[in-house]
Amino acid sequence: MPPTHLLLTNAIVLTMDAALTQYEPGAVLVEDDHIAAVGPADVMQRGCPDAEVLDCGGKVLMPGLVNAHTHAPMALLRGLVDDLRLDVWLLGYMMPVEREFVSPEFVRLGTLVACAEMIRSGVTCFADMYYFEDAVATAVRDAGLRAVCGQTVLKFPTPDAASFEESLEAARTFIAAWQGDALVVPAVAPHAPYTCPPEVLHACTALAVEFGVPLLTHLAETAPEVEASRAEHGQAVVAYVREQGLLEAQVLAAHCVHVDDAEIGMLRQVQAGVAHCPSSNLKLASGIAPTRAMLERGLAVGIGTDGAASNNDLDMFEEMRLAAFVAKSAGNDPTALPAPQVLAMATRLGAQALRLERLCGTLEPGKRADLILVDISAAHTMPRYRRDPGAIYAQLVYAGHASDVSDVMVNGRWLLRERQLTTLDEAGLLARAQEYARRIDHFLIEREQSVLSKLVAIGGAEEGESFEVQAKVRLADPAPVLAALERPGIEILHRRHYHEYDTYFTFADPAEGQLRYREDVFIDEEGQASHVRCRLTLVGPARERPATSDVLLSRSRFLAPASQSLRFYREYFRPSREVSIQKDRLRWRCLFHGMEFYINLDRVQQPDLGYFVEVKSRTWSRRDAEHKAEVAGDLLAFLGVSLADAVAEDYVEIVERG
Amino acid sequence: MPPTHLLLTNAIVLTMDAALTQYEPGAVLVEDDHIAAVGPADVMQRGCPDAEVLDCGGKVLMPGLVNAHTHAPMALLRGLVDDLRLDVWLLGYMMPVEREFVSPEFVRLGTLVACAEMIRSGVTCFADMYYFEDAVATAVRDAGLRAVCGQTVLKFPTPDAASFEESLEAARTFIAAWQGDALVVPAVAPHAPYTCPPEVLHACTALAVEFGVPLLTHLAETAPEVEASRAEHGQAVVAYVREQGLLEAQVLAAHCVHVDDAEIGMLRQVQAGVAHCPSSNLKLASGIAPTRAMLERGLAVGIGTDGAASNNDLDMFEEMRLAAFVAKSAGNDPTALPAPQVLAMATRLGAQALRLERLCGTLEPGKRADLILVDISAAHTMPRYRRDPGAIYAQLVYAGHASDVSDVMVNGRWLLRERQLTTLDEAGLLARAQEYARRIDHFLIEREQSVLSKLVAIGGAEEGESFEVQAKVRLADPAPVLAALERPGIEILHRRHYHEYDTYFTFADPAEGQLRYREDVFIDEEGQASHVRCRLTLVGPARERPATSDVLLSRSRFLAPASQSLRFYREYFRPSREVSIQKDRLRWRCLFHGMEFYINLDRVQQPDLGYFVEVKSRTWSRRDAEHKAEVAGDLLAFLGVSLADAVAEDYVEIVERG
Repeated sequence: MPPTHLLLTNAIVLTMDAALTQYEPGAVLVEDDHIAAVGPADVMQRGCPDAEVLDCGGKVLMPGLVNAHTHAPMALLRGLVDDLRLDVWLLGYMMPVEREFVSPEFVRLGTLVACAEMIRSGVTCFADMYYFEDAVATAVRDAGLRAVCGQTVLKFPTPDAASFEESLEAARTFIAAWQGDALVVPAVAPHAPYTCPPEVLHACTALAVEFGVPLLTHLAETAPEVEASRAEHGQAVVAYVREQGLLEAQVLAAHCVHVDDAEIGMLRQVQAGVAHCPSSNLKLASGIAPTRAMLERGLAVGIGTDGAASNNDLDMFEEMRLAAFVAKSAGNDPTALPAPQVLAMATRLGAQALRLERLCGTLEPGKRADLILVDISAAHTMPRYRRDPGAIYAQLVYAGHASDVSDVMVNGRWLLRERQLTTLDEAGLLARAQEYARRIDHFLIEREQSVLSKLVAIGGAEEGESFEVQAKVRLADPAPVLAALERPGIEILHRRHYHEYDTYFTFADPAEGQLRYREDVFIDEEGQASHVRCRLTLVGPARERPATSDVLLSRSRFLAPASQSLRFYREYFRPSREVSIQKDRLRWRCLFHGMEFYINLDRVQQPDLGYFVEVKSRTWSRRDAEHKAEVAGDLLAFLGVSLADAVAEDYVEIVERG
Repeated sequence: MPPTHLLLTNAIVLTMDAALTQYEPGAVLVEDDHIAAVGPADVMQRGCPDAEVLDCGGKVLMPGLVNAHTHAPMALLRGLVDDLRLDVWLLGYMMPVEREFVSPEFVRLGTLVACAEMIRSGVTCFADMYYFEDAVATAVRDAGLRAVCGQTVLKFPTPDAASFEESLEAARTFIAAWQGDALVVPAVAPHAPYTCPPEVLHACTALAVEFGVPLLTHLAETAPEVEASRAEHGQAVVAYVREQGLLEAQVLAAHCVHVDDAEIGMLRQVQAGVAHCPSSNLKLASGIAPTRAMLERGLAVGIGTDGAASNNDLDMFEEMRLAAFVAKSAGNDPTALPAPQVLAMATRLGAQALRLERLCGTLEPGKRADLILVDISAAHTMPRYRRDPGAIYAQLVYAGHASDVSDVMVNGRWLLRERQLTTLDEAGLLARAQEYARRIDHFLIEREQSVLSKLVAIGGAEEGESFEVQAKVRLADPAPVLAALERPGIEILHRRHYHEYDTYFTFADPAEGQLRYREDVFIDEEGQASHVRCRLTLVGPARERPATSDVLLSRSRFLAPASQSLRFYREYFRPSREVSIQKDRLRWRCLFHGMEFYINLDRVQQPDLGYFVEVKSRTWSRRDAEHKAEVAGDLLAFLGVSLADAVAEDYVEIVERG
């Protein structure tokens, strides 16, 4: 078949080459999938009399935008939750929902929805990291876009792999299957150094090097990540991954917010690509990347939207504007990152960061025909000043909107013509996306019906023994109790001393129970704090409290290690009220009449309630519980206090009663 | 005439009232110019069987956005220059262009273009500050929008007033003419405390109080403004204007970037409105306003776009997103300024800041029918999550685009129907705007043809005497010259000692001449630096240098006080090369043979060239110059040096020659 020739003419041609060559009126000759020539309109028209001609009507004709970092399928999770801290957002919502819903079908649909949005906003190429990346790649091919698709690998089980080994194997299979594709470049994507132990980093690097494919990862996104890296590895993040050999691969590093000069040098040395994600970094309050310094050092810094669940759109016009804005603001210099440089980041430098500079990123003969038409005649971009040839870049970056893109071509094929998508059934895709949202809403509504289901959703909750024997007596003086413990008749198995900081969350509906966040600071023999333990306990309201006993109680108890901060749980569970109690506790595990009890000698300091002695035991068995309740009375008597003086309430009830 | 009734139904109604009441499906009944009722669709439909019905097809129906700060006519200057520092942008470009072009016609056209853009992006009300505000108000009325229009007053002559008194009188006439208008609220706008001396602030306050109209101003936009206020008045900006009585008026203060807690309290006490302008503050690197603190203290903080010359669009969707982003980023807290609060800033709080809370800002019965329809079915906002009633605000703020606005009504009148403007001839307006841009381009191209015209454009340049007598001789030892000056035969009129720091800008075309930025630090009798003087001199290339004389020279010289920084001139003139020379100079003005000469005894320290003695004189007259050139030789001889040793070059030539 003879080659097809299409001459796009009468345009403001911005080649975005290194010299920022422009032609006005200019033209681009597309031959099959690539650009055959670029130049002034009259010269080009004379030079190709036989080409089909498309009059661009004075629009801007430029390379398509390169979205250097996203998680395309997360378009389906756009707007699920917002305005939360990263940990609550990720651990409380994204990961539970992903565990439940992410499948090849989900990934394919989400990618197609993201592609529809990206095509409409002038993106012709993107770098993706997600699960079931084969489904992403298939969707990309169907949409007709170009992408580097990174199969995510991390140490935890993921929606597409039960283990690291499985996910690495999936990456290998994926890369082997897609190598050489015209549109998709397969890649491996170890998620981040804090989710990938050294062996994962090593294996991913080896895989990337073996196949000569890019390695995508998140680096130095947040300050805590860097602090943790310094604490654990004695090195900042980039320095650490370099030591692990990661930079031997063709790395595309997303974020790089917290990198110092030395690390910028390390990235530069290996010609790593960087994906700057200003919206995501602002919205999640991650910080502001030193883009100006990175660019001055010659790093290929592209611009990325990050996923739609944290942005919330995939609008590269917005990202370009923000890249300029944040660099100016952070550097206290309005001349930082001027518009031509920002547009270069979104095109030429982005392609370079993705290792696709031979294929796209500029309008130059020999490159693939990945290009867009942008209408600059709308009220929000007019008028046009022409004195300074740089003004056209400012017009696009500072006043242009995604909706100004009218036509998009990738690999010589139109994906958008006069604002109509040519490869995707947008209405059908959006209807299916909405159906997913409905199901996910339903899942979360179910989950959020109770504090318990929310606790279970973030993992690790176990039901505890439900019968509780507890006798508590207020003391004027702890000395007699301490003396009693020295006497025969009781066997001390273990003694502990700690400061206990309890925070109780209570909820509007008492049936939800109370959630206690408990932090114990253990005190050693020398009176020094030795270590800290945090636990979470959801205590249901009493199922029964026998009228005859202040001691025996039945209620539900769920225990979980508190691996997150108190702040996390506060923002995740949103209690209606909070009570804090601080006490100093001496605790003995002992045998009395052959039964195991705990004896707590508490001094409640905050609020100041004075001394209490508690005798406690827990069991699954009602019979056992009833028996222990009796013995508990004897034990109190042994300690020199009377059950008749017992306080029936928990500390929190005493405090709440005021 | 009986009232007309229109029922907008089948919408997601976001009332934006204080409780964030929503109805879905909901309806709003519009009676003539106001809202008669708001409620659930079914109830409303039953309640008004006779109303004309408009099915909103599931779109969001919400109050129109309030743009709390802009300079609408500057839409015509959008994209004129970008990526410059504020002073270069303002003094080098905006003010010269405004002096040349701003007229009632310019203002009217610019306002109409801005209104077209604002209507399309869902703005129904805005606060404006510019010149010829009567023309702004007329355009606003023609467009059908609602606005608070502030006639600018400042101490300098402006395009519409030769003096402060004239501009104050114009404000009074304007306010009197527009009071009681259905759409326009006239106001007075003292530009800023740093451009308005106390008497201007007092007069504007009195005017605002007399008529009971708002007073618009810029407060605490940049850190240097606050530093200058502290230096000059011993107070931060808000504290200073309070002392000047400004807060007795109904103040709407734009920016408030650099305000401390005490100042926030002062603003709160008088229920001042604040207009937060995130794009402008980022793009000009002004800083980040403490919006969260202001909102927590109960201040009515609206959101503004600022003028299109510094933004560069009037897109409130972008501003909302940025308001949330910068608050999160600056506060290192992604929960700061959540979406519902941001949308309240752009509606209810904005109206309150403009003192229009009784008229607009929410959908409540009795308020004017200022409302918009937003289509949330595009790919970039889909899908929609409904579990959290707050999610709809996040969808609008984080994913919504200006182009999603399909319909706009102000005061009961449609200004946009199905994305078509109903009151404005957009194409005609844009064509006229482009014609202005062409003329302004031409004006600037003319101006920028020479360094001289650029110098003239920023004011204060005067041509100096063009004949120069100059003899310069290198000295091994300055002592003989100093001794000669003590001898009879010369009368010393004046002696000065200073360190001179010269910076020479040279340009690619030598015909441009050289521009010298000169800073003299005067040294008093005790050897202490006493004061500093900065001057700018544009020296043309020599018109003639007689072959017979190393002493006489004719060339053009333009002098100007250097009121801006060296950095300003560097960025404004963009020299191709820069040379710095530093010297210590003893300078005598003296009479010799009855003629006035200057004798300079220089020690050139940077670079280290050693000692020179110069004999200088300047004059308009060639004959006088020739005569002086002869006497200069005698004077050198008197000083014990020989004209035969004279150096024909200027210092900069010596340095450049290396």
